[in-house]
Amino acid sequence: MENIAYYNGKISSIEEMTIPMNERSSYFGDGVYDAMFTVRHIPLQLDDHLRRFYRSAQKIDIEIPMAFDELRALVLDFCRRVDSPDAMAYVQATRGVGMRGHAYCYAGERASLWVWVKPDVLDPMDRTYRCITHEDTRYFHCDIKTINLLPNVIYTQRAQEAGCDETILHRGERVTECAHSNVHILRGGAMQTAPCDNLILPGITRAHRIAQCRQMGIPVIEEPFTVAQMMEADEVFFTSASALCCRVGEIDGKKVGGRAPELIGRIQRAAWEEALEEVRQLGG
Amino acid sequence: MENIAYYNGKISSIEEMTIPMNERSSYFGDGVYDAMFTVRHIPLQLDDHLRRFYRSAQKIDIEIPMAFDELRALVLDFCRRVDSPDAMAYVQATRGVGMRGHAYCYAGERASLWVWVKPDVLDPMDRTYRCITHEDTRYFHCDIKTINLLPNVIYTQRAQEAGCDETILHRGERVTECAHSNVHILRGGAMQTAPCDNLILPGITRAHRIAQCRQMGIPVIEEPFTVAQMMEADEVFFTSASALCCRVGEIDGKKVGGRAPELIGRIQRAAWEEALEEVRQLGG
Repeated sequence: MENIAYYNGKISSIEEMTIPMNERSSYFGDGVYDAMFTVRHIPLQLDDHLRRFYRSAQKIDIEIPMAFDELRALVLDFCRRVDSPDAMAYVQATRGVGMRGHAYCYAGERASLWVWVKPDVLDPMDRTYRCITHEDTRYFHCDIKTINLLPNVIYTQRAQEAGCDETILHRGERVTECAHSNVHILRGGAMQTAPCDNLILPGITRAHRIAQCRQMGIPVIEEPFTVAQMMEADEVFFTSASALCCRVGEIDGKKVGGRAPELIGRIQRAAWEEALEEVRQLGG
Repeated sequence: MENIAYYNGKISSIEEMTIPMNERSSYFGDGVYDAMFTVRHIPLQLDDHLRRFYRSAQKIDIEIPMAFDELRALVLDFCRRVDSPDAMAYVQATRGVGMRGHAYCYAGERASLWVWVKPDVLDPMDRTYRCITHEDTRYFHCDIKTINLLPNVIYTQRAQEAGCDETILHRGERVTECAHSNVHILRGGAMQTAPCDNLILPGITRAHRIAQCRQMGIPVIEEPFTVAQMMEADEVFFTSASALCCRVGEIDGKKVGGRAPELIGRIQRAAWEEALEEVRQLGG
């Protein structure tokens, strides 16, 4: 099948799946999600993503109505069932269904669980990416992967209108992250990236690149950097579930990076090797 | 009937109404809304609310797929059809239906329109209200009435857990607004309220109280006030579609206001008279 969706026990194609109007997502964006990309039908970093999913839910008092192992099996099963070996697997939990009212008591007794898998591909690493910058006007809960994503929608749209791939956000001079990825720089032989606080999502792919860099003897500095430092960095790259390590070649129409091609190449190759190893281990 | 819902041409009860899973509300909270309360089946300040609804949509590039007059007639019709003369009328527009992707191009060609009316009542004015305070951690687009409301959900829940009615938000010392209302103070015979910028919603009821105060010769100062100034004000009150003018008697467990009972009484009576006059004019 081309794609497959699960919602509170129902299974169908994504296009045919319906939900009650009174879902808390409809009125408040009252939910959390996570997303993974597959290679040969195997979702990368599945356990890490699902652990973060349960943590996100807990942070906003949502109890995911399925045990970890059962959800893990469901996601793996869906990834195998879709035709495309390259796909995006998506999980979401909302506070459930009930007449509109802000407080939790208006939600139903059970949270809702949403899962779907659809064809999609990893962002290729053999090209460079073009970005714009934008003031980060989001809320102060960016460490939680919620579905309050309207600013991210607007930022992404602005990038697309500018013929670019991503939007790099900054609060004043301080770079935080992108509309849907973490952003990092290489300078002086080290990787520098914003620390995990309430201004950025603790990216799974970010954590894996940090761990790999340290393993390879590349120092990692988890300290904020400025827009100016980014524009002058040896390399700029972003990471996300779909972007293992994507080089940025242009920001706001100005050329950036390109001064440490060997180093970024090593990080990219290590990222891809790790992905392939994981796929092999899970039988893909 | 008890309640009635409209979604993209379909009409049913709210509980029976279903929507596609792929609504942009489901994944991004990519939409705007507005809400009105009825007296004798007549929604108060209907035109003001609908005008703001179209403005909100325009601010995030959503084209509401129904003309103003047609939507106005639909809302009035629904308000008459529900059994309860006291009800909440709700309108929402989302960017439509499409496979998940941040940029607008993933949405369908037409935005979605949602309307429903359900029984509800205005907050009574013959009592005082208890509030808590909370740091305002929301985004910087609070002037747009979007459905990115998860922080507001959390704030309201915290108020309820504390046995209170509303949460008053502040950015540092500066009071902004409440979880779902605007907040104002009376001091030295004047009404003071935060100015309309990107930190507060330009409340319809707020605007009407300001206009009425000025008509009654009560000066209105549209300047930010601090938490300390609020705690020492002669009166504190909040306004929203459901709260014409609600007196606050306690904040964070401390008694507040109560020092200008005649003045707040005049504002409350004027608010109620305006509502009744509007209902009479619209045949309620």
